[in-house]
This record gives sequence, structure tokens and C-alpha cells, in this order.
Amino acid sequence: MQRHFDEQLKDLHQEILKMGVMAQEAIYRSIEALKGRDKAMAKDVIARDHKIDLMENTIDEQCIDLIARNQPMAGDLRFIATAMKINSDLERIADLAVDICERVEELTDKPLLKPLVDIPKLSTIAQKMVKDSIDSFVARDIELAKSVMRADSEADRLRDLVQDELINDYMVKDASTVDRAVPLLLIARYLERICDHATNIAEDVIYMVEGKVVKHHEPE
Amino acid sequence: MQRHFDEQLKDLHQEILKMGVMAQEAIYRSIEALKGRDKAMAKDVIARDHKIDLMENTIDEQCIDLIARNQPMAGDLRFIATAMKINSDLERIADLAVDICERVEELTDKPLLKPLVDIPKLSTIAQKMVKDSIDSFVARDIELAKSVMRADSEADRLRDLVQDELINDYMVKDASTVDRAVPLLLIARYLERICDHATNIAEDVIYMVEGKVVKHHEPE
Repeated sequence: MQRHFDEQLKDLHQEILKMGVMAQEAIYRSIEALKGRDKAMAKDVIARDHKIDLMENTIDEQCIDLIARNQPMAGDLRFIATAMKINSDLERIADLAVDICERVEELTDKPLLKPLVDIPKLSTIAQKMVKDSIDSFVARDIELAKSVMRADSEADRLRDLVQDELINDYMVKDASTVDRAVPLLLIARYLERICDHATNIAEDVIYMVEGKVVKHHEPE
Repeated sequence: MQRHFDEQLKDLHQEILKMGVMAQEAIYRSIEALKGRDKAMAKDVIARDHKIDLMENTIDEQCIDLIARNQPMAGDLRFIATAMKINSDLERIADLAVDICERVEELTDKPLLKPLVDIPKLSTIAQKMVKDSIDSFVARDIELAKSVMRADSEADRLRDLVQDELINDYMVKDASTVDRAVPLLLIARYLERICDHATNIAEDVIYMVEGKVVKHHEPE
């Protein structure tokens, strides 16, 4: 029985990892679609989101079932509760990649605005934060989790930079850019929200390992 | 022991209700601050958010503790798991009210754009959806939960309407309106995201009552 339970926990680990890879891939491809003005790729990311949605449901069921059948003790319970939270964050990250792709679809019909200001840079940070947050979960690595929390302020700064540039250097100077600048501005905000979800994951990992809630506190 | 557990479940119920009221109040006051150009009220909503953050942590701990100590059976476990999800949605709803207030702070320094297009209407829908979603949890009312899910498409429609009006009737026609129209556009999106969280809650209530996952499916 105990051995069976340990194997189920390992499976859960693997499922979260798989979901993390799918979410990272969705972000990567959404920004590739933006850079390449590739409507087909955007559509494909949107179409595949359904698989991630289903996976979220399955992992949730798996967690509840694990708790109900095994009545796990505190440490395992924290692991399962954390897996449920990470699961929900990853699904929302994938949803944000879909939001990006919907803006890409709008943009590909219009002339190019300019080389996308700092959006690709923000996207690189977002992908790294998501990857590191999942890695910190797998390795129970508190230091890595804290580095994710610290990276979030750089993401905030970049989003503000992108937004200021789009507003002041484009929209205000030339109103004909508005309908192309607004989708880019939203994409910058989606990326920053992806970083927020990675930060949530990192906070939950610290809680899982240390049993200490760091959410809503500043990182050390 | 069982009686004690039932009382703890009732407490959890009450805490979620209390958190729901705080979140609703935060939305209401954020839009009052917007309408009244009331920077002090906006600041107050932002300052009080810390209480909601702490409450989220407390409820989370309470849920884990309840499971660890009582090893509840399937029905109670579903109730506790749902409470944890609702807890997280309510905290994010309050965060979105803070986002609205931050935009209000930017706007009060600038001349008024116009009577806020359909934002107050969207806000009324958002508040009703949050209230109904919490009520559906308290009363285990599937029909009410389904009505919340249906209302979400009206919220999407209104957000698109507000956005189109701000872009085409203001920003494109007069570039000097951009720095006031963008915050309003973002506020409309925040309100629509509040509606999404209310929809999440409604979906979780249906899961709790029927043991059936309706998330990522269309309402009947």
C-alpha cells in the first residue's frame, strides 16, 4: 500500500512536469507566432489549449483521489496541495499564451508596427521564470524558488517600459498606430502575468519545503 | 471529535463568506473611486488589500490542517478542496480591485475623458457575478452557479464594446486621449477578469455538489 502511494506521488510529479513543459511550449510558440507573424502557429497554440485544460482536470482529480484514498500525513499532504496549486497556475499560464495568440491573430492582418520593443526580452524572462519555478518544485530547491521571486520585479519594470514606449512614442505621436500598439501593450501585460504565476509557483514551493507561507511577503 | 470537525467546517464556510464580502467591497469601492475621482478611496482600497492577503494565507492553513487532522471522506474533502480554490479566486479578485485603484490614481491627475462608457455597467455585472458565485457555494445552489457561468459571455461582450469605443471613438480620433483611454481600457479588462474568477468559483461549486467537473466546458 505505502509503496503504491509513493508511486502515485511520483506519477503526480511527472504529470506536473509534463504540464509545465506544455505551458512553456505554449508561451514559446505564441511569441514565435508574434515574431514571425504566423497566424497558423497562433491558431495551433489556441487549438492545443484544450489538451492542457483536460490535463488540469485530470491532475485535480488525481490529487483529490490520492488524498481520499491514502489519508496522507502532513508532508505528503503539503506536496499534493502544492501540486494542485501549481496545476492551476500552469493552466492559467497556458491560457495567457492563448490570449497572446488571439492578439497575434489581430496583428497579422495589419502592417508591422516595429521590432516589438522589449516584448521578446520580457518573453525570455517569462519562460525562464516558468522553467525555474517548475525545476524548483522538482528539486525542492528553495534558492532557485527565491531567485524566481526576485526576477519578478525585472518583469514588472520591462512591462512598464514597453507600455510607456508604446503609449508615448507611438500612440500619442501617431494615432494611426493605436490599433496595432494596443494588442502589443496587452501582450506585454499577459507576459508579466505569466511571470506572476511563476512567482506564485515559487512561493508555493517554499511553502511545500519549509512549511512557511511566503506569499504576500517580499523575498529576502 | 465529529462534532468538532463539523464546527470547523462551518467556520471555514464563514471565513469564505467573509472573504467574499471583502472582495465584493473592494470591487465596489474601486469603481466608486473611479466615478468620484477619489484618490483617497483608491489608496484606502490598496492599503486594505493586505488584510485580504493575510486572510487567504489563514484560510489555506486552516484547510490543510482540517484535512491533516480529520482525514475527511470524499464529500467533505471536496468541500475543503473547493474552499481552497474559492479562497485563491477571491484573493485574485481583490488584487484586481487593487489594479483598478492603481489606474484610478493615474487618472485622477488628468482631465476627465467622458462618463466612463460602459464600465459602471460592467462593474455591476462583475459584482453580481461574484456575489452569486459565493451565494451558490453557501446554498450549494447548482442553478445559481450555472447562471453565473452564463453571465460571463455578457461580460465578455461589454468588455469588447468598451475597448472598441475607447480605441475607435477616442484614441484613433484624438491622440491626446490615449493616456486617459488606456487606463480605462485596462480597467474594463480587469473587470472582465473578475467575472472570469466568479465563473471559476461557480464551476468549482458545481464540482463540489455534483462531483462533476464542468470547468473548460460550455454551460448547458
